[in-house]
Amino acid sequence: MKIIVDAFGGDNSPREVIKGAALALEAKPDLKIILSGGEAAIKEELSLYSYDAARIEILDAPEIIGNDEAPVDAVRKKKNSSIVAGVGALNSDPEAGAFVSAGSTGAVLTAAVLLTKRIGGVIRPALAPELPTVNGGSVLLIDCGANADCKAANLVQFAIMGSAYKKVVSGIQNPRVGLLSNGTEDKKGNELNREAFPLLKENSKINFIGNLEARDILTGEYDVVVSDGFSGNIALKASEGTAGAMFGLIKENIEKGGLRAKLGYLLLKPALKNVKRVLDYNEKGGAMLLGLTKAVVKCHGNSKANAVKAAILQAAGIAERGLTASIEKALSDND
Amino acid sequence: MKIIVDAFGGDNSPREVIKGAALALEAKPDLKIILSGGEAAIKEELSLYSYDAARIEILDAPEIIGNDEAPVDAVRKKKNSSIVAGVGALNSDPEAGAFVSAGSTGAVLTAAVLLTKRIGGVIRPALAPELPTVNGGSVLLIDCGANADCKAANLVQFAIMGSAYKKVVSGIQNPRVGLLSNGTEDKKGNELNREAFPLLKENSKINFIGNLEARDILTGEYDVVVSDGFSGNIALKASEGTAGAMFGLIKENIEKGGLRAKLGYLLLKPALKNVKRVLDYNEKGGAMLLGLTKAVVKCHGNSKANAVKAAILQAAGIAERGLTASIEKALSDND
Repeated sequence: MKIIVDAFGGDNSPREVIKGAALALEAKPDLKIILSGGEAAIKEELSLYSYDAARIEILDAPEIIGNDEAPVDAVRKKKNSSIVAGVGALNSDPEAGAFVSAGSTGAVLTAAVLLTKRIGGVIRPALAPELPTVNGGSVLLIDCGANADCKAANLVQFAIMGSAYKKVVSGIQNPRVGLLSNGTEDKKGNELNREAFPLLKENSKINFIGNLEARDILTGEYDVVVSDGFSGNIALKASEGTAGAMFGLIKENIEKGGLRAKLGYLLLKPALKNVKRVLDYNEKGGAMLLGLTKAVVKCHGNSKANAVKAAILQAAGIAERGLTASIEKALSDND
Repeated sequence: MKIIVDAFGGDNSPREVIKGAALALEAKPDLKIILSGGEAAIKEELSLYSYDAARIEILDAPEIIGNDEAPVDAVRKKKNSSIVAGVGALNSDPEAGAFVSAGSTGAVLTAAVLLTKRIGGVIRPALAPELPTVNGGSVLLIDCGANADCKAANLVQFAIMGSAYKKVVSGIQNPRVGLLSNGTEDKKGNELNREAFPLLKENSKINFIGNLEARDILTGEYDVVVSDGFSGNIALKASEGTAGAMFGLIKENIEKGGLRAKLGYLLLKPALKNVKRVLDYNEKGGAMLLGLTKAVVKCHGNSKANAVKAAILQAAGIAERGLTASIEKALSDND
């Protein structure tokens, strides 16, 4: 299994990305990695680690696409960027199973959608992170940003692709699918949701269990939460923002709380670290772009080595388990 | 100032609602309250408190509209429910300044929109809670549920009404308005947002500072966050769900963490309570339904006496400061 990794993507690249790649190679003996990015910088970073040189290739592509660049323009112009060259190699190298990047989400999505083949029948690929649930499991939120405007038929495909993912990757036989809405009643929702609801309900290929409110995404009652990309993005980021605000407030109140609070914190530190770990979706890997013939995994821009390692192993697992074939089959069964 | 309170609305009614009303009367000597609900039950609960009987009236309306009832049907059929009778009294009693309820959101919105007069020029009233920000301030999220499907012109009105609220109620001279989106760049968003963005930018009556992501709602950088009611509802409830999940996980990890964690918790308890208090938007009162000629405040279904008291005082403050006149002026200035 060969994975292409964007060595020049993310806030902590190339250092943490290359460290993550080295850790992934160590963890999985049959893994090969292609690092796309500036060759000189990659070689310099690689020299910090001991690794099996036969399992690493470098794809010299020193241009960088920044978060502030218009994705379509940047992907067209910067052919020699780590993202565009990396996605290109994903297409041209038959051994390559997946592309992993912590770079600009817009550029990764654009390059992947423009330059990679879709699975037959897929109208719109969708971005889907796995979020940790309070009972120790995870829920796939699909779409969370690839498609700001959706039609009901897109949401049905998201449900089918998401269910295939949870079956193949998490081994869940009959994934429970919910539709993200502004209430739990069947008739709740905006126009899009009210149109999608009966289509999801009637579809025999998915186990649709109804509408859910955003407060119930993390309860563990759902394996797949279906949403248009705009609302899904808002749910994901509101959740992230609230968790960040809470940890910030806890820290502030510990600092203000004098010796008593500081001592309390020292004693409670392992418990709080555990909470942080459970809620940190970066530790579970990245968000999958579902619907393409090869796997593309986008990890958080601020990913450190362990998150990159997790995303690489996740991408390898997805490719090895033949997720794209399963999605193709699920979609054609549905026709 | 006379406020009508739905004594039969909410998970903890009538007990906590009536206790909240008694606390509000105690806190504000010029306040009068009309309690709508079953007279016998109200009288029984009232007997638990000492209060100035001249300042409380009872509007006998014993029917209850449940959360699981279809709002439009229920409002049409249950004329003698605490919600419908309460909103009716708001219209017919010239002294009444506001209606406060912890009952079914759908029924409160429906009754208020169907039975109460809109401010001249308002296309759609909007539901707007004030959320606590990490710097100790608050941000108004408008709309968070009254209008699942919006047009760009609605969002512009939400911005104007929300700005009037923050000027009149919070005393902020030039409230900073952001548009909730899936990215911060000007061109980000779904079709609705991309259409609304230039209209907001051009409008000289508001201080529009651009798109924001849901992770930045609570940072304190915005006074008003504008959204369609579907996305706003998702942001609000994702935030609520994440905070709940975190407190649940902290509790679980303390219980699992043995004596060390329990001791740490005892020491850290004041700091954690403070975090909870800062994040608890119920303590700030309820969500305002903006755009009607009289104030309607919806508090959380699980409100206890203190939250009800806060909502009653908030409603009285809004009515006294003449918010509806300010909104009317702001909207007509805009024409």
